[in-house]
Amino acid sequence: MITIHGMTMSGNCWKPAQMLRLLGIPYHWIETDPNLGDTRTPEYLAMNPQGEVPVLVLDDGVVLTQSNAMLCHFAEGTTWLPKPGLARTRVMQWLFWEQYSHEPYIAVARNLITYRGQKQAQAERLRLCAERGNKALGVMQQRLAVAKFLVEGGPSVADLALFAYTHVADEGEFDLSLYPAVAAWVERMAAIPGITRLPRPDRVTSA
Amino acid sequence: MITIHGMTMSGNCWKPAQMLRLLGIPYHWIETDPNLGDTRTPEYLAMNPQGEVPVLVLDDGVVLTQSNAMLCHFAEGTTWLPKPGLARTRVMQWLFWEQYSHEPYIAVARNLITYRGQKQAQAERLRLCAERGNKALGVMQQRLAVAKFLVEGGPSVADLALFAYTHVADEGEFDLSLYPAVAAWVERMAAIPGITRLPRPDRVTSA
Repeated sequence: MITIHGMTMSGNCWKPAQMLRLLGIPYHWIETDPNLGDTRTPEYLAMNPQGEVPVLVLDDGVVLTQSNAMLCHFAEGTTWLPKPGLARTRVMQWLFWEQYSHEPYIAVARNLITYRGQKQAQAERLRLCAERGNKALGVMQQRLAVAKFLVEGGPSVADLALFAYTHVADEGEFDLSLYPAVAAWVERMAAIPGITRLPRPDRVTSA
Repeated sequence: MITIHGMTMSGNCWKPAQMLRLLGIPYHWIETDPNLGDTRTPEYLAMNPQGEVPVLVLDDGVVLTQSNAMLCHFAEGTTWLPKPGLARTRVMQWLFWEQYSHEPYIAVARNLITYRGQKQAQAERLRLCAERGNKALGVMQQRLAVAKFLVEGGPSVADLALFAYTHVADEGEFDLSLYPAVAAWVERMAAIPGITRLPRPDRVTSA
């Protein structure tokens, strides 16, 4: 059976698990917390020298890294990834954009504010996160104001990748009510049978 | 004819141009400098709301963004992108890793030190770039110590994407002699017929 080494609260780890659930592929989950050093052991670093979650181990022991590469791997041949051509290229654009212009600000703000309690201690970094994260949400708003999903033809791995941290962006103090088309898309995605949201944490105290 | 809006000194802009040259596809280049405001015009932002280079316009006027998505778009069906399966997934892993764990440190250090002359002014940021960039080069070294190219089967778009900023990493004060397998791979890549290196700038004065 496929094994995912992941942290339940991580949007990046949510991605491959959600993809497998949508495709009806069973998997075994091993809770792995980078904050507790779980990703710094020699065994873990042998799987992923970058020391990041998620790591996914296929039935035959082959190890995959990079959540968006995992999405593409399992989505190939399904409706979640268009056939080669312009629609697929659009999906790829959103996937790279997510990792470069969305996750580093929205996921990081969520982590610092809600999971590490560093709202004051990391105030300068959070100002940058707020600026860039809101810019990213504006880009999504512009697209989703004229389309039901990020790429035409129906929901794709691009929507899954962006849903991961967008639907919990409030935990990074982003206000989705300022981006009504994004907020509507979140509800549209959450209504797809089989889609599950990330759990909500108890807030930690700000430091 | 295909048009690329790009900056000659940018590794991200080098990627689609290099891919097209390797495939023998002609293109028109429009020099576009974000530092001069070229990417903030309404016309440019209509093509790419993120305001980044490169932007690529296909014959039919369709606009592509995200350099690594462009690589995949043109490489489909060629030896530069393996057929769907594990080798392709490995290529995707490197492409996402490049944008998340390599480019934000190695390209940024190069830009701040060599193009903006901000070695002193951005000392703290450059310390982070040095740490993370060297970590990235270590990951490449580990792979390239046991393989000729990043993904087995020959050079792929993963190698092109990583070559872009690795072969000029010295401009960000990274020392490739510490990563001999990476240095050897750079030479192996540069020896492929049709591969051209980025031009070398005149150094600007440090501020």
